[in-house]
Amino acid sequence: MSNPDKVLQPEEAPLRPKTDATGDAYARAGVDISAGNLAVQRYRDLTAGWRHASQLGAIGGFSGLFKLPGDESRLLVGSTDGVGTKILIASTARRYGTVGADLVNHCVNDILVVNASPLFFLDYLAVGKLDPIVAGEIVAGVQAACRAHDCALLGGETAEMPGLYQPDHFDLAGTIVGMVDAAAVPDPERVSAGDAIVGLPSVGLHTNGYSLARELIPVAEWVAPFAAAGAGVTYLDALLAEHPSYYRAVRAIQRVAAVKAMAHITGGGLLENVARTLPERCKAVFEQSRWTVPALMTELVRRGDLNENERYRTFNMGVGFTLVVPLADAQKATAAWPGAAVVGWIEKRNAGDPAVVVHPARA
Amino acid sequence: MSNPDKVLQPEEAPLRPKTDATGDAYARAGVDISAGNLAVQRYRDLTAGWRHASQLGAIGGFSGLFKLPGDESRLLVGSTDGVGTKILIASTARRYGTVGADLVNHCVNDILVVNASPLFFLDYLAVGKLDPIVAGEIVAGVQAACRAHDCALLGGETAEMPGLYQPDHFDLAGTIVGMVDAAAVPDPERVSAGDAIVGLPSVGLHTNGYSLARELIPVAEWVAPFAAAGAGVTYLDALLAEHPSYYRAVRAIQRVAAVKAMAHITGGGLLENVARTLPERCKAVFEQSRWTVPALMTELVRRGDLNENERYRTFNMGVGFTLVVPLADAQKATAAWPGAAVVGWIEKRNAGDPAVVVHPARA
Repeated sequence: MSNPDKVLQPEEAPLRPKTDATGDAYARAGVDISAGNLAVQRYRDLTAGWRHASQLGAIGGFSGLFKLPGDESRLLVGSTDGVGTKILIASTARRYGTVGADLVNHCVNDILVVNASPLFFLDYLAVGKLDPIVAGEIVAGVQAACRAHDCALLGGETAEMPGLYQPDHFDLAGTIVGMVDAAAVPDPERVSAGDAIVGLPSVGLHTNGYSLARELIPVAEWVAPFAAAGAGVTYLDALLAEHPSYYRAVRAIQRVAAVKAMAHITGGGLLENVARTLPERCKAVFEQSRWTVPALMTELVRRGDLNENERYRTFNMGVGFTLVVPLADAQKATAAWPGAAVVGWIEKRNAGDPAVVVHPARA
Repeated sequence: MSNPDKVLQPEEAPLRPKTDATGDAYARAGVDISAGNLAVQRYRDLTAGWRHASQLGAIGGFSGLFKLPGDESRLLVGSTDGVGTKILIASTARRYGTVGADLVNHCVNDILVVNASPLFFLDYLAVGKLDPIVAGEIVAGVQAACRAHDCALLGGETAEMPGLYQPDHFDLAGTIVGMVDAAAVPDPERVSAGDAIVGLPSVGLHTNGYSLARELIPVAEWVAPFAAAGAGVTYLDALLAEHPSYYRAVRAIQRVAAVKAMAHITGGGLLENVARTLPERCKAVFEQSRWTVPALMTELVRRGDLNENERYRTFNMGVGFTLVVPLADAQKATAAWPGAAVVGWIEKRNAGDPAVVVHPARA
C-alpha cells in the first residue's frame, strides 16, 4: 500500500498524508495537518523496527488485521476511533443520545471496508465530572448501536479525571473487533479501469470536520432554523445528525454485485480515503452532479469560502461510503439499496495523475 | 458474580461498588465515588435488557469474555483502560516515555486475571495540540511494551482536539485483545479456606490514586529528593514509576503451583479487587507485616492522614497482583519469582464478615 504509516495508526483522522498546502481552513480551526504528517512519520519509523508475525497490512489502513491463532483462514480485525470534536457540540448542547451511535457506526464502517462483521465493542468514556445520568445516556447510545449489529458490548472504561477535562466536558472513544474469512477480504488489485464506483449517501459531517464547522457556525446560531436542511431543522440538528452504519447496505449490495474495493469516507474526504484503497495504476473519477451535497456542507463551504480541495478533503460532501463494482453490476448494486448511486468510475492512472479527481457540478 | 455491573463497564477504576462512606479523601480530590455508583447502576440497568449470546461474565470484571465463533473451546478476552490522571503528572513534567508502558501493562494484567495471553493492542491518543515528538515518544512506549509481550500493536487513533484538551494536555487509553482456552479460565469456586494468597510487589501507585496524590504532593515538590524512596530519587520519579506487567511472574508461578484465582490490584485496592474474585463463602485476610509498603504510599498516607479504609481502597499499598494457591504450593510459588511472598490466606466467611480484611502491621 502507499500508506505504510497507516498500519500503526490507521484511523487518525487529522493525521492525513501531506499532499498539498491546502489545509489552511482546517489549520485556522486549530488542527495542524503538517504536525500530523510528522507524527505519522514517527509512528512509521517505529513500526519499521518490529511487527508481529500474525499482523497483516490493512486495506488502506481503516483497520488492522490479525491471523486467528490456530486457524489462519480467518482474520481478527480491530479498529479504534473517537467521535472527535463533535463531542464538544454534544456537550455544549447537552444532547448526549447520538454520540454513542456516531462512535459505534464509525467503527463498524471501518472494519466493513475489509468485509469484516463485528464481534464485540469496548468503549472509553472520560469525563471531567461524572454525571450518572449523562454517562448512562451516552452508554445507552453505544449499547443500542452495538445491539443493532448483534455486536457484544464487551466492556469499557469510565474515567473521571478532574483537571484534564472541564467539568461539563467528556471524550468518547471505542474499539471494535470483528472477523472475516481471509479469502473474503477485498483485493484492490482486482480493481480495473472501467469499474463503477457506487456511493452511499452521507447524512451530514458524520464524525469529521467539526473543528472547522464549529468555527463557521457559532453556538449562538445553533438553535436557529436551518431551512435549507428541512422544515423544523435547526443547525444543531444538522450538526448532530448521526453517523450512519453502512453495514446492511453493503451486505445487500454484495448479494447482487462483485464488490472489489470499499472505502469509508472519513477525515481526508473522498480525495484521501478512496485513494488509499486503489492500486497505483488506477484513479477514481467522481462526478459531483451524480449525488446531492447535504445542505450543511453547502452552507459550510459558503461560509468558509472553501476551495474544491479544502471541501473534498475536510468533508465527505455527501458520499459516506464507496464500493467499486464491475460496470456490469452497477445497476443491480444501486437497485439493492435506497440512495445508492453510481458516483464515479475507475480510470487508468497515468504518471503525474492524482489518485482521485472530483469533477464539480456545473453551476 | 456479585458485581453484575462489571460486565458492561468492567474496569472503571473510579466506579467502585458502594461499600461504605470512607471515600472522603478521594472526594476531596475531585473524584465522586457515589456518582460512580449511580453510573454503574445505570449501566447495569442497560445490560439487563440485552446481552450477546456469545458474551460471558468476566471473573470479577477485569475483562470481558467472548466465545470464539466456530470454536467455543476458546475465548477472546477484551479490556479497555486508560492511564488516569497520572497523565497530568507526565504532561506537566514533560516526561512522556513511561505512560505507554503504564497503559499496556495495566491491560495485560487485566486479562491475565482470566489467564489470557495478549494477541493485539490498539491505542487512543487525544491531544489538544499535536506535537509529533511527544506523540512519537508516547507511542514508542506503547509499542515497546507491546513487543515485550509479543503483542501486535494493531492500530490506533491519534486525535487532535483543540477546545477539548488544553494545548499541552493529552489523554491516552487503549484496548487489549487476548485469548484463553475456556478450560483454563480460573474458577473461583475452587478457592477454599486454608489457601494461601501470594502477592507480587507493586512499584508505586501504578495507575490509580493519582487525583489524590496530586493533591498531596504539589508540583513545586516534584523535583525535590525523596530520600525515603532511595538515593537520587525525586518525588516525580516515584510518582511516574512504571506500572509493571505481571505476565512473566504469573506464568512462572503457574508452572509450579495450582493457581485458583487472581486479582489485579487497581482502583479499589486490595479491599475491592480481591473481593470480586472470591466466592461468597470465602474471605481474604491480609497481614500487612508480610510485605513492604512503598515509601511513596507511606508518605501519602502520612500527608493525607488517611485511615485504614482510605489507604487500602485508594492505593495498592505495595501489592500489585494476587494469586490464590493451595497452601501446599505456596512455598514453590514464592520461590518461582523474585519478590513473590505469601501476603495472606483464605478463611471461611461468616454472615456479616467483610470479603477482605487487612491486618495492619504492628507499630
